[in-house]
Amino acid sequence: MSVETLAPAVDMDVLHGRLDALVAINPLPPDGACRLALTAEDRAGRDQFAAWAQAAGLALSVDAVGNMFASLHGARPDLEPVMSGSHLDTVATGGRFDGALGVVAALGVAEAMKASGKTLPRGLVVAAFTNEEGARFQPDMLGSLVHVGGLSVSEARDTVGVDGICLGDALDEIGYAGPMPPGAITPSAFIELHVEQGPILDAEGLTIGVVEGVQGISWQEVTFEGEANHAGATPMRLRQDAGRAALALGDTLNALTAQIDGLLATAGRIVMVPNLINVIPQRATITVDLRHPDDAALQKAEDCVGALAREAAQAAGVSHATRQLARFSPVPFDAGLQERIALAAEARGLPMRRLISGAGHDAQMLARTSKSAMIFAPSIDGISHNPAEATHREDIEKAVSVLGDVLWDLCCEESD
Amino acid sequence: MSVETLAPAVDMDVLHGRLDALVAINPLPPDGACRLALTAEDRAGRDQFAAWAQAAGLALSVDAVGNMFASLHGARPDLEPVMSGSHLDTVATGGRFDGALGVVAALGVAEAMKASGKTLPRGLVVAAFTNEEGARFQPDMLGSLVHVGGLSVSEARDTVGVDGICLGDALDEIGYAGPMPPGAITPSAFIELHVEQGPILDAEGLTIGVVEGVQGISWQEVTFEGEANHAGATPMRLRQDAGRAALALGDTLNALTAQIDGLLATAGRIVMVPNLINVIPQRATITVDLRHPDDAALQKAEDCVGALAREAAQAAGVSHATRQLARFSPVPFDAGLQERIALAAEARGLPMRRLISGAGHDAQMLARTSKSAMIFAPSIDGISHNPAEATHREDIEKAVSVLGDVLWDLCCEESD
Repeated sequence: MSVETLAPAVDMDVLHGRLDALVAINPLPPDGACRLALTAEDRAGRDQFAAWAQAAGLALSVDAVGNMFASLHGARPDLEPVMSGSHLDTVATGGRFDGALGVVAALGVAEAMKASGKTLPRGLVVAAFTNEEGARFQPDMLGSLVHVGGLSVSEARDTVGVDGICLGDALDEIGYAGPMPPGAITPSAFIELHVEQGPILDAEGLTIGVVEGVQGISWQEVTFEGEANHAGATPMRLRQDAGRAALALGDTLNALTAQIDGLLATAGRIVMVPNLINVIPQRATITVDLRHPDDAALQKAEDCVGALAREAAQAAGVSHATRQLARFSPVPFDAGLQERIALAAEARGLPMRRLISGAGHDAQMLARTSKSAMIFAPSIDGISHNPAEATHREDIEKAVSVLGDVLWDLCCEESD
Repeated sequence: MSVETLAPAVDMDVLHGRLDALVAINPLPPDGACRLALTAEDRAGRDQFAAWAQAAGLALSVDAVGNMFASLHGARPDLEPVMSGSHLDTVATGGRFDGALGVVAALGVAEAMKASGKTLPRGLVVAAFTNEEGARFQPDMLGSLVHVGGLSVSEARDTVGVDGICLGDALDEIGYAGPMPPGAITPSAFIELHVEQGPILDAEGLTIGVVEGVQGISWQEVTFEGEANHAGATPMRLRQDAGRAALALGDTLNALTAQIDGLLATAGRIVMVPNLINVIPQRATITVDLRHPDDAALQKAEDCVGALAREAAQAAGVSHATRQLARFSPVPFDAGLQERIALAAEARGLPMRRLISGAGHDAQMLARTSKSAMIFAPSIDGISHNPAEATHREDIEKAVSVLGDVLWDLCCEESD
C-alpha cells in the first residue's frame, strides 16, 4: 500500500471564508459560535452548505433525519463512493472548527477534484450529519446513528430536546426532513477530519493525528427526590435534601477517576428545584459523562456511579432514579485506513502520532457499516467546546492536504 | 407581671377566609402559594390587606420601601403604639401560613379590639413588611431592616433581584413606594405570631412556642471560574473545572455540620455555565446558607467555608470569589415579653416551651429599636417553604388567642 499521489490543493482562502461565514451566523467571541442542532442557526449553516455544494455542481440529497450529502460523481457508478464529512451543529459554547472543519474540508477536496478536470473512478460524497453534539437532543451522534441503522427515524423524531421540543418537530420547522431513506448511500470508506479537542498533538508539537479509535461513552442522568423545607428551621438529621445527594455524587467523580486509570468523568449539568438559597432542594438532577477506551473499565465506572448514587441517596434520605442518555462502546478504526493516513502524512513530511479520540465522532457510527477512520488537526492548548477553540492556519492547511491525498487515493481505487 | 385579661376572641372564620384569599392569588397545590416580593402576586396580596384594613376602619400608611401599617388608634396618643405583624411575600414554593398568618392574626386582633367598644390606652399597629423572604431580593428581612434604619432607602431600592430587576423599579411598578419615611412609627413593643417552620413543637405535642431569640444567619454566594472544555478530550489533570469546585464545596457542608454542633448548612442554589452534559463547566455559582444560635460558632463556620472554598478552587485549578449576601448575628428577644407570652399561654392552659427560631424573622429587626418577641404555632412535621406547609386549625386558634391576650395587655399598659 502506498499513497503516492499528491492531490490537487484545496483553496484555503475559500475554506477559511466558509468557516468565517458559519461563525458569523451566531458568533461568540473570540472566534466561536452557537448553532445548536435544528435551531434557526443550524438551518442557516445548512443553507450555506447547500448553497456552496450546489454552486460547486455537487448533487445534494437530504435524508429523513436531516443528514445532508453533496455528491461528486465518479466515472464508475458501479463502485461505492468514498465519503468524508462531519457535522455543522455546535454546543452552546461552540468553537470555530468542531464539526464545521470536516465538512468544509471535504467540500474543498471535492471542488479541487472537480477542478482538476479528471473524473476519478469513485465518487466523493461530502456529508454533514444531524445533531452530532447531543447538546440539544440525546444521544449525540444521532444523525450518523440513524444513517447506519442504529436508531429508527421514528425513534429519532420522538427524541425530546432539553428545551422540551421534539426532534421531529424541530426538523420539520427548519425544513430539513428530507425524502431520502437514511443509509441510502453506503460508502466504501469514510474519512473524517476533525480538530483533536484535546491537548496531545499541540503539547507534542505534532501536526497530524492518526486516530486509532474512539473511547467508549456513557451518559447518565441521576435525579434525586427529597422534600423542600426551610433551611433555617429543619434540623440536619430530619432533612431529605435532594441537593446534598447530587452534590455528593458529583463530588465523588474525581476520586473515581483516580481509582480507574484512563477514566474521564464529568458532571457538566446540575439542576436543583426550587434552587433557592434558603430552601432545602426538593429535587436535584445531575448528569454524569464517563469515557474510557476500554469497555470493561467503562462498565466498571458505570457500576461505581450506580453504587455511589445509591449511597448518596441513602445518606441524604432521598429517592433516586437513573436514566441512561447515551451509551457507546469503544470503537476501533480500520487499520488499513489508519495506515493510508499515516503514509500520506509521511509522504508530506508531517510529524504525526497515533492516538485515541477522547470525543465521540460521526466516524465511529459510520464504522458500523463501512471502513472508517479519522484525521486529527491539533487544538491549541486542547481547548474545545469553547469559543476560544483555535488551530494554527498552517496546521489546518496541512491536515486538509492529508485529507485530500487520502480521499484522492481512495477515489482512485477500483477494487472493492 | 401578669396577663389576666382574656382578650375578645378573633373571628377565626374571617381569619381563615383571608388566608384562603391570599392563597387563591397564585395557589400551589396542596395548600401553598407563590407571592414573590414585589411581583404582581405580592401586589394582589397587599391590595387585599389594604382593603381589609380600610374596611375595618384602620388608618393605612405605606413607607418608602413598601412596608404597610394599619393603625387602630389608642386613647392616649402620647403613648407609643404596640405593633404586631409579619410579611405577605412568600418563597417560590411558599406555604399557607408563613408570614400571612402573622399579618391576618394581628389584623383580627385589631378588629376584635375595635369591636369590643373599648378604646385601650395604646394604639395597635398591624404591620406587613416588604421582602422578608429574600427569595427575590437579598438580604432577606429587607423591609424591616430598612424600618429600623439598618439599610437606607436608596441602598434598598438599588438592590438587584435574582431576576435582574432593581427593587426600586419593582416597588414603583406595583405602586407600593409610599410617602412615609421608614421608621416613622416606633412601637413600645413588637409581637410577631408565626408558624415554627421546624418540627419541635409538633414532635413534642405542644401548642405554643415562646421564642427566646433567632439564630444567626450567614448567606454567601461562591462563584468559581475555570475554563469550558470538552468532557471527552480533556485529561483530568489538565482541567479547570469550575463545576467540580462547586460540587466539592457543597458536598463538604454536611461534614461541617458534624464538626460544629448546632450548625445548619444548606447549599440550596447552584448554577453552572454552560450547564451541558459534555462540557466542563466554565463557571459555577453555589450558595451557602449557615445558621447557628451562637455568633462565635457561626463565625467559625464562615471561616471554614472560606477555607473549603479556597481548597476546592485550588484542587480544581480554578479561581473563586465570595459575595456575602446576608449576615445577621443571633438576636435574643426581650425577656419581659417572653414572660408575658408564657403567662398568657399558661392562663389558657396551653402546653408550651421556649425555643430558638431557626428561621430569620422581621421581629429580629424590630428588636434593634423596640422590645420584641415572637409566638410560634406548630408546623405539622416541621414542613415549611413548601406548599404542603400545614398547622391544625385548633392550634392556629389557640396561638391567635395568646397573641390577642398579649396585645390587649400591652395596649392597656400606661407606663413607658
